[in-house]
Amino acid sequence: MSKPQPIEYADASAEVKAVYDDIKAARDLRDVNNFWKYLANDPKTLRRTWESVKEVMAPGALDARTKEMVYLAVSATNNCGYCIASHGAAAAKAGMTPEQFGELMAVVGMANETNRLANGYRVPIDPAFEK
Amino acid sequence: MSKPQPIEYADASAEVKAVYDDIKAARDLRDVNNFWKYLANDPKTLRRTWESVKEVMAPGALDARTKEMVYLAVSATNNCGYCIASHGAAAAKAGMTPEQFGELMAVVGMANETNRLANGYRVPIDPAFEK
Amino acid sequence: MSKPQPIEYADASAEVKAVYDDIKAARDLRDVNNFWKYLANDPKTLRRTWESVKEVMAPGALDARTKEMVYLAVSATNNCGYCIASHGAAAAKAGMTPEQFGELMAVVGMANETNRLANGYRVPIDPAFEK
Amino acid sequence: MSKPQPIEYADASAEVKAVYDDIKAARDLRDVNNFWKYLANDPKTLRRTWESVKEVMAPGALDARTKEMVYLAVSATNNCGYCIASHGAAAAKAGMTPEQFGELMAVVGMANETNRLANGYRVPIDPAFEK
Amino acid sequence: MSKPQPIEYADASAEVKAVYDDIKAARDLRDVNNFWKYLANDPKTLRRTWESVKEVMAPGALDARTKEMVYLAVSATNNCGYCIASHGAAAAKAGMTPEQFGELMAVVGMANETNRLANGYRVPIDPAFEK
Amino acid sequence: MSKPQPIEYADASAEVKAVYDDIKAARDLRDVNNFWKYLANDPKTLRRTWESVKEVMAPGALDARTKEMVYLAVSATNNCGYCIASHGAAAAKAGMTPEQFGELMAVVGMANETNRLANGYRVPIDPAFEK
Repeated sequence: MSKPQPIEYADASAEVKAVYDDIKAARDLRDVNNFWKYLANDPKTLRRTWESVKEVMAPGALDARTKEMVYLAVSATNNCGYCIASHGAAAAKAGMTPEQFGELMAVVGMANETNRLANGYRVPIDPAFEK
Repeated sequence: MSKPQPIEYADASAEVKAVYDDIKAARDLRDVNNFWKYLANDPKTLRRTWESVKEVMAPGALDARTKEMVYLAVSATNNCGYCIASHGAAAAKAGMTPEQFGELMAVVGMANETNRLANGYRVPIDPAFEK
Repeated sequence: MSKPQPIEYADASAEVKAVYDDIKAARDLRDVNNFWKYLANDPKTLRRTWESVKEVMAPGALDARTKEMVYLAVSATNNCGYCIASHGAAAAKAGMTPEQFGELMAVVGMANETNRLANGYRVPIDPAFEK
Repeated sequence: MSKPQPIEYADASAEVKAVYDDIKAARDLRDVNNFWKYLANDPKTLRRTWESVKEVMAPGALDARTKEMVYLAVSATNNCGYCIASHGAAAAKAGMTPEQFGELMAVVGMANETNRLANGYRVPIDPAFEK
Repeated sequence: MSKPQPIEYADASAEVKAVYDDIKAARDLRDVNNFWKYLANDPKTLRRTWESVKEVMAPGALDARTKEMVYLAVSATNNCGYCIASHGAAAAKAGMTPEQFGELMAVVGMANETNRLANGYRVPIDPAFEK
Repeated sequence: MSKPQPIEYADASAEVKAVYDDIKAARDLRDVNNFWKYLANDPKTLRRTWESVKEVMAPGALDARTKEMVYLAVSATNNCGYCIASHGAAAAKAGMTPEQFGELMAVVGMANETNRLANGYRVPIDPAFEK
């Protein structure tokens, strides 16, 4: 096995093409993003991941923009460069303004800071939070 | 130095008491949470952290509930037990419903999964996301 | 100190050359990878790390391919680009097939997802797992 | 919303009971683990996660024991206490010996160490790994 | 919103210019680093982060070199490429020698290794450390 | 395999006893900490880890106190509860004052915050840091 390679639509199996078609229709795209082209090396994971993402990211109790911003917050915390780029674009497409992006990053930074302060000081959970 | 210990109001310096008073007033609490009682061992960090949290978490382009949910998303990603408990409570107080909590966790889980798929498959950033 | 620079064989001290020679012999390589050329800036860490890697990665109760796949799983979780590339190649050399890579990534993704669900829902350990 | 609470079989909806029954049958258990009882607060996530875990963890190109060991490796890297306990038990049930556990942890430790050495020394990827 | 863009001095608001001027004066620089040029998209976060960094990194009970080395240790653990580069330079400027860098990385690597061994073996805290 | 169990001195093999004796002599302890008692389940890892820790933590270009503080900084970043407790005690024993602990945690918190700001804003490395 060499470095993973993307699978383009023209070279894809019928199974993979069907997932690509569904992604393109759901998101109104002319071509799927690289993420899906690489996952296509494992058609089961491609299909399962797409079905899961479609279900999880659908507007429900939380709207699409909030969900994309949470995705971006997690991706910035984990430092996934690809995910920061793709979900940054998706959040903007869903309506995130530059001001909201700024506040989102401020919260992400602050949470990452206080998480470590709580760890390092060995802060016990307040009884009120155990109920 | 032994294990960090909390500093109760009665034992606090005037500088620390002033911060405690501001926290209690801003959040309508009878006593500050353990996090602040431990940070009080370093009064400068107590003051700076509280001033920063107050500024960052104030409603602005994002509302208070969204900010608390993002805080919770980061804390679950980092597995900070104290922070999950305290910001879970804060998010609920700010109006997060159980349904919203469920969807929030679903997004957090999915983002953590796909972050690693993007890493492992070494997916390059699409040119469209570089603009 | 500027940016760390690699130390090539021709420029290496006798101590570093000895480690390079051992790596090349053990792995049947004409030249050592960049990782070792950078570690060579600290000859003690170079030697200790190589001795440790050699002991840990030797086939034992687990075979070499399984060990390389675990290394890759950890590297994808931590998003170490260099390590994903080098241990991806090492795993393939040790016999990992594309199908196995696909299933490995699927497990890594799923574990990263459910780790956060367990964190966020504050799931207590079942008594059966405490024995 | 207070702290998440587990949902026992007797109190579960028909939708949740159906997932519980499938888990119990697939794993030959008298009761499901706490993880599922907490996820049941969000029936869609319960169902989706179980269907995904079932598909991902089924023996395929990798056997069940290897998959459980990879799960354990990721969980130890992320420090998910619940997941270390539950997947440690699952790996043992799937045949992992104490010697294999010891070697697994040795690889996990070494990978976490060298991941940071590669980061800190800013090691560029060897051209051979880019093919 | 497209990809975040840096804000150069000539294009900055008076509020942002004031922070840039303070950074340049405090660090004796002709221009601020990219980090600040990107944060300037959110002037409140720019100002707050600079004020916090200035306070935290000032020599006190710990000297400036030790603080920069700790910053570098955290950045290598989190794999923040930008931060490793910028704080590696800052640590060197503050007097870190190549030998100290080598020992720092060795400690960072070892801590990341034993952190996971402690996690995976589920080691309970010794009573002596609870006092 | 059940949950890992500690191996007490009286029950240890000669090989394990020899490592325990060396740890006790080097650190002037009456008994080794739990970490070593659990690692003893894998005598090779026990020996290798102890030899590595002894080499890495010995005073050199960095003094013992600085090394323990870096260990603590990494452990707080990774949220390893055992390691925070044990290396917090070790740092204190090596002379870390409460004021130094406070400043250490402040730097750790700030680094974790700005690491994510740099990630989220996708800040490119300044050319000056690439030399």
